[in-house]
Amino acid sequence: MQFVDQGLIDEDEALRRVSGEELARLMFPRFDTSGEVTKIATGISASPGAAVGKAVFDSARAVELAAQGEKVILVRRETNPDDLHGMIAAQGILTSRGGKTSHAAVVARGMGKTCVCGADELTVDTKAGKFTAPGGITVSEGDVISIDGTSGVVYLGEIPVVSSEVVRYFEGELHPHADEADDLIRAVHSIMVHADHKRRLGVHANADNGPDCARARRFGAGGVGLVRTEHMFLGERRQLIEDLVLASTDEDRQRALDALEPLQRGDFVEILEAMDGLPVTIRLIDPPLHEFLPDLTDLSVRIALAGDNASDKDKELLAAVRRLHEQNPMLGLRGVRLGLVIPGLTDMQVRAIAHAAAQLKQAGQDPQPEVMIPLTATVQEMEISRERAEKVLREVEEETGTHVHTLIGTMIEVPRAALNAGPIAGSAEFFSFGTNDLTQMTWGFSRDDVEGAFFSKYIELGIFGVSPFETIDRDGVGRLVDIAVKEGRAARPDLHLGVCGEHGGDPDSVHFFHQVGLDYVSCSPFRVPIARLEAGRAALAGGGSDSR
Amino acid sequence: MQFVDQGLIDEDEALRRVSGEELARLMFPRFDTSGEVTKIATGISASPGAAVGKAVFDSARAVELAAQGEKVILVRRETNPDDLHGMIAAQGILTSRGGKTSHAAVVARGMGKTCVCGADELTVDTKAGKFTAPGGITVSEGDVISIDGTSGVVYLGEIPVVSSEVVRYFEGELHPHADEADDLIRAVHSIMVHADHKRRLGVHANADNGPDCARARRFGAGGVGLVRTEHMFLGERRQLIEDLVLASTDEDRQRALDALEPLQRGDFVEILEAMDGLPVTIRLIDPPLHEFLPDLTDLSVRIALAGDNASDKDKELLAAVRRLHEQNPMLGLRGVRLGLVIPGLTDMQVRAIAHAAAQLKQAGQDPQPEVMIPLTATVQEMEISRERAEKVLREVEEETGTHVHTLIGTMIEVPRAALNAGPIAGSAEFFSFGTNDLTQMTWGFSRDDVEGAFFSKYIELGIFGVSPFETIDRDGVGRLVDIAVKEGRAARPDLHLGVCGEHGGDPDSVHFFHQVGLDYVSCSPFRVPIARLEAGRAALAGGGSDSR
Repeated sequence: MQFVDQGLIDEDEALRRVSGEELARLMFPRFDTSGEVTKIATGISASPGAAVGKAVFDSARAVELAAQGEKVILVRRETNPDDLHGMIAAQGILTSRGGKTSHAAVVARGMGKTCVCGADELTVDTKAGKFTAPGGITVSEGDVISIDGTSGVVYLGEIPVVSSEVVRYFEGELHPHADEADDLIRAVHSIMVHADHKRRLGVHANADNGPDCARARRFGAGGVGLVRTEHMFLGERRQLIEDLVLASTDEDRQRALDALEPLQRGDFVEILEAMDGLPVTIRLIDPPLHEFLPDLTDLSVRIALAGDNASDKDKELLAAVRRLHEQNPMLGLRGVRLGLVIPGLTDMQVRAIAHAAAQLKQAGQDPQPEVMIPLTATVQEMEISRERAEKVLREVEEETGTHVHTLIGTMIEVPRAALNAGPIAGSAEFFSFGTNDLTQMTWGFSRDDVEGAFFSKYIELGIFGVSPFETIDRDGVGRLVDIAVKEGRAARPDLHLGVCGEHGGDPDSVHFFHQVGLDYVSCSPFRVPIARLEAGRAALAGGGSDSR
Repeated sequence: MQFVDQGLIDEDEALRRVSGEELARLMFPRFDTSGEVTKIATGISASPGAAVGKAVFDSARAVELAAQGEKVILVRRETNPDDLHGMIAAQGILTSRGGKTSHAAVVARGMGKTCVCGADELTVDTKAGKFTAPGGITVSEGDVISIDGTSGVVYLGEIPVVSSEVVRYFEGELHPHADEADDLIRAVHSIMVHADHKRRLGVHANADNGPDCARARRFGAGGVGLVRTEHMFLGERRQLIEDLVLASTDEDRQRALDALEPLQRGDFVEILEAMDGLPVTIRLIDPPLHEFLPDLTDLSVRIALAGDNASDKDKELLAAVRRLHEQNPMLGLRGVRLGLVIPGLTDMQVRAIAHAAAQLKQAGQDPQPEVMIPLTATVQEMEISRERAEKVLREVEEETGTHVHTLIGTMIEVPRAALNAGPIAGSAEFFSFGTNDLTQMTWGFSRDDVEGAFFSKYIELGIFGVSPFETIDRDGVGRLVDIAVKEGRAARPDLHLGVCGEHGGDPDSVHFFHQVGLDYVSCSPFRVPIARLEAGRAALAGGGSDSR
């Protein structure tokens, strides 16, 4: 407690003065400008990061070159919704017009892509495929430039990129008391220690594999708040999902599930081992299964072009893709609905979790798995899913002779779940707010479809000040969270409450989650330090303690 | 008041005893069985109506024959999600297994399609393409059968269909005191008179053209609660929307809007004339504009097959379809967002409404248009839309020298709008609950995608007793309606409140809307008598009066 004696007030004040946004900026890779560099312009730092690539002045061309493996910077006077594909393909975006709420800035931030906008010293001529800068400099398509989204500076040529020292500190590569650590690292260290000391909110990470879990732990996560099991169905395993979808008999379906189970078990062993002694919240498969099949339009074109030579296999696949096609997949057969409609799917996943945990416990470890049911809207869905999961847990316990305490809870991500939190809490030991989907459904818009199409216009019109996917919308989504917290806790006082949407790593949103009385936030590993910092600042700012 | 003296209690009791569902059954066309008929089985009356067609035992075959213009009855032992297209193509569905909550029954009711299920006297052999009935009767593919979804009876051959006498009464073709009117018509008449006398709820109709409006009026509608203006963009006018979407300059876009305006004005003149003296709530265009363009997959296949011969026009169209393609169109660029993002669109529609009304008023009529903004989620969207609409109304008033009092209000159809009803009511003179979309977003499922895919399973599992698209879900969607009514009225005591989702014609839901304190329900013209009856019964049952 010497620490306190030496001046707690100063520590508090330091914590108050450093924002999560500043810390986030320090964590991006940056340019090493110690050599000779040519600055050609300074624009607005619209979305942080350091990007290097060939200048390209047309979105279609950006897509084309990126497909050939080239790194490109998309340069436009300003962007509009038609540039979306080009922006996705590029390493970074540079515009000569527009401010922090221009289309380029809003969309790039949403994508987490480096962007400098409004660099008005540049004269961009997209038709001629070039821009000119003060001092008679001309950059044509194919010339390499470097843009610093953190400072807004644009450089000619390729500037070397170095990793952030602050990240090296969080990774444990740079000790705060080592000689090579500078004042910045020591200050960050001291503030993080104080934030952890002050904060009431736990900070977990969203991670789907061992290495991500290990990094999350190094970055200070107290658990994993979201394992997305569908991420384990990609790559070579996609074929097994295809087999599951195409199965025409119960036997074929069970065979596909049986093939998946040991793979899933292996995934869970890796994750639970990396998080030994800490809670790991594993969400059962969420997306519609047709997402693992080929795209309807691509497959239709391929088969039409093949004509009589189209294979029976492809035709069968097309029939399945058509049958499973959904007008609005986000509002389709997904989440808990999959588990209720496809026999054996929930059982397979829960069995893989239970076996993985039993194996580790037998090896002397302390696995703490939690089973999370996605997209629940009614207490009945939760009750049925819970019964099935409990049955499997009991079976594995008998088979292995090993008991692993396993909580069963649910995501709260459709508005109806928030409005029925009381009854649902009767059957769920924890809630995790899925604020991405909750935002989409509460507003009635899908991030993929609307962010590029009209968000900058909405910000320009003052309809919102910041994208509700970046910072939680307190009046709409936040109100639902508040209702669910109050009614869920009233029904089950020890209900464990967290959030696993991307808002979990957003500074403003962390303050809201503190105030509303959640137990923890969960975010991507790289956002964990930011959430820790902001959770400390939120505790300093007060409020929220009486929500318990 | 002689009426009351003669025994009001009996009138009340009669009203209590007749349900809207019974009245609905009386309004379907029915078989004329006065001639010689062969009953071959009696199953469960799963979805009312009288359907005649050739028996077909396979869904793909049903689609094929229907495409050739044949009327078919899909006969299956039981249906599953793969039968969806066949069910859509068929006149009616007959199954030998399953009850009122079987897949066939649930999906057919959702579609409003005649269905007899669980006719277990029949032995259906889909492979052989036939079924056998008691008495050695065999029906093979192509043989005509008639199924009565109201009574559950299955007939051999074609039975003549006659229109409902009750409908003829509502149409005014059959006077209740005429000689040919039987006791049934006189009873219906007397009950309807009493229901109208008792009810507090107004009953409006959803109608998009003059003839539908005229029918709605004959059926007793006190106004039109929903004119869907996008229904006016189909057929030959689709080209104009295509021009609007493909416009690359402001001039081209304005030219497309200018071409649409007189057509829209003509539509509104027809509707306002048919509803002279009654309120007509006109919703500005709601669906995403790409819905008026060709389908992405169809167009891609056509162009791929054409190869080098693909026309430039088609290629340009494909580029536009790709650009506007949305992953989840229901959650995309639609509703108020269109009006805010596409310059001139709202103005064009409001100008057409204002000119139509001015023209009728100058001709001595009493047009009562209301402008309804769709899909509002924030008060800012409402304020901006309102300002634009008011500006156009003022301009037309100056141009024509004619003032038409025109309310401006909004749909409440995304959860966020319900949760922000107070602020939104500050800028809206009326709310109309769009309970179809509100149900989709509150539950996070799209009717098109889920009703056929898992609703029967959900009903079987007891997750819900009836589809939330048929009867309003009081605990979720209903709670949002209740919040919005209370907070909207608190902010604006004279806020006019209605519902224009299909629930407006559902008996149970009408009772809920009465209790929660709405001013009116709006439903399809054919459901208007049912809503009038149930609104009377709801008033008798009490409750709801103190919600004002």
